[in-house]
Amino acid sequence: MSEQLQNKRHTLAHLLGAAVLQNYPHAKLTLGPAIDTGFFYDIDFSGGETLGDDNLKEVQKTMKKLLNTWTEFTHREVTPEEAKEVFAGNQYKIELIDEIVAKGETITLYTVGNFTDLCRGGHSEHPNQDISADAFKLDKVAGAYWRGDEKNAMLTRIYGLAFDTKDELENYQHQLEEAKKRDHRKLGKEMDLFTFSDLVGAGLPLWTPKGTVIRHQLDTFIWELREKHGYQRVTIPHITKKDLYVTSGHWEKFADELFRIQTREGKEYALKPMNCPHHTQIFARKPHSYRDMPQRYAETTMVYRDEQSGELGGLTRVLSITQDDSHVFARHSQIKDEFFKIWDIIDSFYGAFGFDLRVRLSFHEPTEMEKYLGTPEIWTNAENALREIAKDRKANYFEAAGEAAMYGPKLDFMAKDSLGREHQVATIQLDMNLPDRFDLNCINEKGEKERIVMIHCAIMGSIERFSAVLIEHLGGNFPLWLAPEQIRVIPVNDVHNEYAAGVQEVLAEAGLRSTLADDNDSMGKKIRAAKTDKLPYFIVVGDQEMADKTVTLEKRDGTKQVIGITELTSLLTKEITDKTL
Amino acid sequence: MSEQLQNKRHTLAHLLGAAVLQNYPHAKLTLGPAIDTGFFYDIDFSGGETLGDDNLKEVQKTMKKLLNTWTEFTHREVTPEEAKEVFAGNQYKIELIDEIVAKGETITLYTVGNFTDLCRGGHSEHPNQDISADAFKLDKVAGAYWRGDEKNAMLTRIYGLAFDTKDELENYQHQLEEAKKRDHRKLGKEMDLFTFSDLVGAGLPLWTPKGTVIRHQLDTFIWELREKHGYQRVTIPHITKKDLYVTSGHWEKFADELFRIQTREGKEYALKPMNCPHHTQIFARKPHSYRDMPQRYAETTMVYRDEQSGELGGLTRVLSITQDDSHVFARHSQIKDEFFKIWDIIDSFYGAFGFDLRVRLSFHEPTEMEKYLGTPEIWTNAENALREIAKDRKANYFEAAGEAAMYGPKLDFMAKDSLGREHQVATIQLDMNLPDRFDLNCINEKGEKERIVMIHCAIMGSIERFSAVLIEHLGGNFPLWLAPEQIRVIPVNDVHNEYAAGVQEVLAEAGLRSTLADDNDSMGKKIRAAKTDKLPYFIVVGDQEMADKTVTLEKRDGTKQVIGITELTSLLTKEITDKTL
Repeated sequence: MSEQLQNKRHTLAHLLGAAVLQNYPHAKLTLGPAIDTGFFYDIDFSGGETLGDDNLKEVQKTMKKLLNTWTEFTHREVTPEEAKEVFAGNQYKIELIDEIVAKGETITLYTVGNFTDLCRGGHSEHPNQDISADAFKLDKVAGAYWRGDEKNAMLTRIYGLAFDTKDELENYQHQLEEAKKRDHRKLGKEMDLFTFSDLVGAGLPLWTPKGTVIRHQLDTFIWELREKHGYQRVTIPHITKKDLYVTSGHWEKFADELFRIQTREGKEYALKPMNCPHHTQIFARKPHSYRDMPQRYAETTMVYRDEQSGELGGLTRVLSITQDDSHVFARHSQIKDEFFKIWDIIDSFYGAFGFDLRVRLSFHEPTEMEKYLGTPEIWTNAENALREIAKDRKANYFEAAGEAAMYGPKLDFMAKDSLGREHQVATIQLDMNLPDRFDLNCINEKGEKERIVMIHCAIMGSIERFSAVLIEHLGGNFPLWLAPEQIRVIPVNDVHNEYAAGVQEVLAEAGLRSTLADDNDSMGKKIRAAKTDKLPYFIVVGDQEMADKTVTLEKRDGTKQVIGITELTSLLTKEITDKTL
Repeated sequence: MSEQLQNKRHTLAHLLGAAVLQNYPHAKLTLGPAIDTGFFYDIDFSGGETLGDDNLKEVQKTMKKLLNTWTEFTHREVTPEEAKEVFAGNQYKIELIDEIVAKGETITLYTVGNFTDLCRGGHSEHPNQDISADAFKLDKVAGAYWRGDEKNAMLTRIYGLAFDTKDELENYQHQLEEAKKRDHRKLGKEMDLFTFSDLVGAGLPLWTPKGTVIRHQLDTFIWELREKHGYQRVTIPHITKKDLYVTSGHWEKFADELFRIQTREGKEYALKPMNCPHHTQIFARKPHSYRDMPQRYAETTMVYRDEQSGELGGLTRVLSITQDDSHVFARHSQIKDEFFKIWDIIDSFYGAFGFDLRVRLSFHEPTEMEKYLGTPEIWTNAENALREIAKDRKANYFEAAGEAAMYGPKLDFMAKDSLGREHQVATIQLDMNLPDRFDLNCINEKGEKERIVMIHCAIMGSIERFSAVLIEHLGGNFPLWLAPEQIRVIPVNDVHNEYAAGVQEVLAEAGLRSTLADDNDSMGKKIRAAKTDKLPYFIVVGDQEMADKTVTLEKRDGTKQVIGITELTSLLTKEITDKTL
């Protein structure tokens, strides 16, 4: 946020404090900072009446009244004694004053209108001119421990939203509401895409038939894109002897997140947290001539990471992570070509959903080399190569130190969704370390062993996380090719059932995921159901349609057309082939 | 084996003993029984010259000579003292005599020709008439401890093959040789289908690009068959909280074979050894009306069982087992229909490879109820239902007690391969126990909860085991639709490379898995490579083909034809669609 907006929000925290003191003179203010979407103030109401969500309007009214009188901030430096006199009876402020003294810092008091607060500064200079009274709003009340420590007193935190303009405030509120409606956990349940079971456990989604259709369609799309670029599928198990990860370095570096297994014979195994070490063993099964390079292995498979249960939620943080993973084993001279191929796949894939992408060059943090495998030279070379590629590609990119994987730097793709939120999605990683650790070579033109590189890439990242992002991006309105149920045939009444069944049969033969609504519900109820189920299309057939051998096709956006059955299937088939959004 | 054949084989063991004593008078005979394919005798040669594989011919010659003189067996009962006098100096026979005495049994000696042995009987009465001298053959020599105990003396075991006729013997020897050539471990490596890594561990196959094509084609075929019968795919993780298996009963009954995991928070998880408990949780996510029954879930996924490492070998016994699993949640009234649907799928699938099937009704063992879940009544009902179905289907079936799964009886399908060996493959299981344990119901026509049943079925059993069976059945000669590389284009020399590349491009566009052999090897070498790679087809293009815009197509069986390029792709595409064997 801009410094100006930051100052406004900070000022509004003061204003909130002043308004509360006016309405609740027994309240004790503690701390009130600016935050990402506005501001809050933590306040102790234990000395009298407590404030709840119902009282926010009235406090907000007071704020607006006071704002008119807040013409200018003044501040002065004071001695600890003076400060303590001002905040006599407020043990929180006294504690803060003591801390400032202990650090040897200056104590400043900021005053505006009739309100004075202990503060370091950073306000709008002329609040009544700078702050628009309709660009902020008190949002909600929550509990918060003094200084975040549960051993301390429980305070009341009052949240406010604040932006530069009324429009921005309204946009944000709309986005919030929309995000709530689109929450993938809510839609996932309503649309019957996935479920959780207490017996199986948190972070372990079970995918229903409908959800599995989406997974399968997404994965097939990825595979079609990969196949064009010479990828081949491979298959590995989900476990391995410890030895593989001792060699790869994961046993040490991945320590806590590794699910460990002891066999009945007392041997140590682990569940794979990534696929690269296994894939190296497929590459290493035989010698490779330079003529056979690169080798491009792809596999969509679940990996497992032992996350803390408190961190699990919906599909965004799971224990069972389905990666659409790939590893290219390439010569140095092939790195750029292979990155470009993958980048093409990423552009095609995300383009099909209308996501905007930008790229983070995730580099290592030179002061923390102990987190990484390999020498500083290897890292510098690899990072220079990536920077070169991003430049050549004329990409929208930025660099970030400390975001690399343990074995090499990455290109992380960030997708902006329809609500303007940014998500980290695909990632391409250049790895010059695992080939060393597993001694991976090809035989070059001179008949000599040549060390190769590995390029790791998951286009979706994980199907779980991408599904969550996609559900929210589309609000559950999947394009036809992706919709679990593509079209439903609704007979006007019983006499049309047979004709309707015939139509549905034609659709099914054409490979369309279709159903027939021939139960006893009314037509109106059936149409409403088709809409709440977010079907891309439904069809109504009655007397006229039966007579003309047509159907009335209604699209999700409400547009209707009467159409012959052959035209219908070719219309829909084309929309599927084109992956129309 | 028939009693008659058993007697012949037993007689041949005597004959072997007699021949060895004639050629090696210092040898001490111990035990010599009939076995499945002939006979053996364990003999102590430590008193003099030892016998090796090189000496078998000469012993066999002696056997044949002796056989002429073996007109009739006689036997007599003797006292322990008499017996010990006959076998004086042979501590093994003395030990056997002492054991017979200890059991209070009678000691009998059988004599034929000049040879007498301690024996219980069961011989060909007139060996020289009953036994065909060209229907047996000494096979090999191996080491064996006296009575199988490694603390005892090491003896020499001489194996012989024996059948009723010379033809049967030769057939068996041919089968043995053929089986060796077709061993899936050997072909899997030669054809580059799968590999193992010491770092990953035994029993954990890594599937190469070629092997994964086969897995994928097999699984897609299964899915096409299932989809026609209303199956839907679901997706589950590979782990679960212990709670799921406590409820299902696996925690107790599957004890040793369960891979257990402890999380960083100290919770107990397990790797799934089967998919049914997870699938119940998908079914149980919401209430089901009788109108929505049955629900048919399918999923091809790996399960994990902690086998002892000594038992692992090739693809037939692995730790990571890919099941093409399915669970039908059905009403009692739907059981028969659903079994018939599955049976149709099994017939289509195995028919496509030319396997003959017969069915084992695998029932429970009533004297060992502690191995099973559920009451005797539930079991009897379920088994009666299966017997009824097998009868209705007019199947080739037999019953076997003690072969049931822990939660219900099974139909186990046995496939006879091209070498006449029988393999257990598909299995359909009727389960009335898990629905009880997980309280699975539908709401019936009366609005009441109705307990449902589950039908478990894996068509291939596991992809690993089925692949092993299939590779050996076909000798690696996969039909076109299944071959990892379907066709290779071989230019006669460099000037034909461009034309050849054009042909290969057309094949690739038509979706054929094709390659171009445009390296520097000679045409002869390329053709030999195409044959050792067991390609269904290869194409040669030279001057004539280039001029005529044709290709010379050679099939695996050696037949050739000159054919236009369009006809070529439609010929091959049809063969793929038809799954021609």
